[in-house]
Order: sequence, then C-alpha cells, then structure tokens
Amino acid sequence: MQNKGILYVLSAPSGCGKGTILSEVLKNFKNIHYSVSATTRSPRDGELNGINYYFITREEFESEISNGGMFEYAEFCGNYYGTPKAKVMEKLDAGIDVILEIETIGAMKVKQAYPDAVLIFILPPNVEALKQRLIGRGTEALDVIERRVGEAASEIEKSYNYDYVLVNDNLIDAIEGLETIMKSCKYMTKFNSNTIKGVLN
Amino acid sequence: MQNKGILYVLSAPSGCGKGTILSEVLKNFKNIHYSVSATTRSPRDGELNGINYYFITREEFESEISNGGMFEYAEFCGNYYGTPKAKVMEKLDAGIDVILEIETIGAMKVKQAYPDAVLIFILPPNVEALKQRLIGRGTEALDVIERRVGEAASEIEKSYNYDYVLVNDNLIDAIEGLETIMKSCKYMTKFNSNTIKGVLN
Repeated sequence: MQNKGILYVLSAPSGCGKGTILSEVLKNFKNIHYSVSATTRSPRDGELNGINYYFITREEFESEISNGGMFEYAEFCGNYYGTPKAKVMEKLDAGIDVILEIETIGAMKVKQAYPDAVLIFILPPNVEALKQRLIGRGTEALDVIERRVGEAASEIEKSYNYDYVLVNDNLIDAIEGLETIMKSCKYMTKFNSNTIKGVLN
Repeated sequence: MQNKGILYVLSAPSGCGKGTILSEVLKNFKNIHYSVSATTRSPRDGELNGINYYFITREEFESEISNGGMFEYAEFCGNYYGTPKAKVMEKLDAGIDVILEIETIGAMKVKQAYPDAVLIFILPPNVEALKQRLIGRGTEALDVIERRVGEAASEIEKSYNYDYVLVNDNLIDAIEGLETIMKSCKYMTKFNSNTIKGVLN
C-alpha cells in the first residue's frame, strides 16, 4: 500500500529568491502538486484564474471559511487570501506531495491543522545583504526598503518554528539544499508506515 | 558562531548491508566522527584496540557505568558492549558530527539521553528477501538463519521509533538515500539556531 503524500510549506521574506529556487526544484520533482491560493482581489494584467490564484468573490470566500474549507487565510488591504483545503487533502490521500508557498502566519496555522506538514524557511545570508539586494533591484524607494527589511527581520524570527532553514547565499546551493530536504522527507518514518508494513509482510 | 555537531544513530538487522552502506557514505563526508564502541570481550584475530572496539576490562567498564560515562550499554553472552559518552560529547561540542552504529535497544537509550539524535534504520526489502540473502551467504545453517530472520522481524517492528527508515533494495540507491538524509539534517532548524542568529545580526 502506498504512503500518503507529504505536505511541504515554503516561506521566505520577499527578496530571498524563494520563487526562483522553488521553480527550479519543481522541474526535478514529479508527483508534486503546487497549491494555488484563493483570493478575493481582482486579477492583475496577465494573471490567470487557477494559475496565479483562484479568483473568487468575497461571498464565496466567506462561505468556504464557514465550511472549514480553508487551510489558512488572512485579510490584507481589504482582500482575503487563503489556501483551499479540499484539493490539498485529495492529493495527499492519493500519495501526491503538495507544496504551499505561503507567509509565516499561514504556515503556523497549517502546521497546527496538519502537524505532519514539513515547514521550510528560506533565509537571506543576512539582513544587510537582503537590504542591498532590494536596493539593487531599484524598484523601491529607500524608506519602503527599510520598512520591508524590518518586516523581514521579524519574519526571520519566526523561522525558529520551522522544521528546516535554508540560507540562500548561493542560488545553486540553495536549489540543491531544497531538493535534499524534500528528498530526505521521503525517508521519514512518519511517512513510511506502509513501507514498514510491506517489509514485514 | 558555529552550530553543534549532529549525532546520527544507525541500526539495521544483520544482513541488511548497513556496514557497506555506511562505509561508502563516510567516504563522502568530512567532519564526521565514527564512534568506536567499548567491550569487555577479548579481541578476535585481526581486531585492533580503538579501531574495532575499545577493549577494556570488566572493572573499567563497570566503573564507567557508575560514573555515567556510557551513553548506552548492554550485556550479551557475559560481555559488556557500550558507547563511551565523553568523546561523543566532545566532538559534538566542537561542531563535529558523530555516527553511532548500534542496535535498537541502545538506540532508544541514546534518543532518551540525547533527544536531538537522528535515528536512521536500514530495512531489508522484505523479511523473505533477508532470509534469501542470508541463505545465499552460505555461512549459517537454516535453523540459525530462521532464528535470525525472526529476530530481524522483531527489530524491524522497532523501526517505527526511528526518525528515518531506508529500504536497501538497491545498494546505490541506499547509499544515496543515507547521504540525502544526513545532508538534509544540516538544514534542520534545531541544529541551526546559530545560523539564524547570524542572519539577524
């Protein structure tokens, strides 16, 4: 009998290269489902329903909340964002791994609701390097950058509650690191009760 | 500041290829200390003190026990076998990883004394395959093999208490698997509090 899928939760302060690392790693993993979040905000140019987000109405979102259909959710700037639960559970039950890319508060809620979730936090080499990277992008004013760096520091404090931390001081190493972590989880006893049963039979 | 070393504990029923897997993996790991057990039995031909075992007297062993100097110990056929604690702790404190190759009861005692230890159990593909492998060796009588297979099954039951299980149905995969597990532990948050502190400073 097959083992259940593994639920991975990935978080990082913005500017830590999470998106790049994850998209490279996903190329090398079969049998993994990237969970698309739901939101009540309007699609931006080029955003597609079911790819970037599930764009749903406020009424639909609130009905999901009251039915226990959201793994976690939060409201930012008047819009809801959340992780629909049904598809995640369906994939896990079918032995397919699932990855959620969500922020720290949502990650803690997922861990609480599903203790077997594997939480991975990507760290910048240091807070100062993160600041320099954001300045280098040249897309934001210095006061915005400073606020974001302050927020990043308080998010990094929350990494103590994650199962793994991965420093992105070199993209190749960070990609390999995330792959190593995800591959190693396949050997965790808690995901292999059916393997052990199979050996004994 | 450096992180502490990681204590790995490796167990397997005999005939599962543990020795081969481990010696291959150790070639690719620097900065790891293989802990040599102590015993009161006499050295066999070719066995060297400090390499195969620390050969000590019964009085020395019992004095270590009463001083709390043994991580775990047991008596088999009138001889003590155990893991001296001081060297293990010294290496871990110096940021060097340590690997213990011990049986299941000892592994449980180590986990109790040192909860951060990472316990890895190597499984045969199935109990029947283990029996065939032992028959294939041709070094033991069938009744001995059957007793050993029975013992293996009851040891495999204990693998549920390990952190990781690794099926050796293919030596190359098993070597890669053990490497992946050991590498991934380097990213565990519990071994990286100094990493996180470093990022924040």
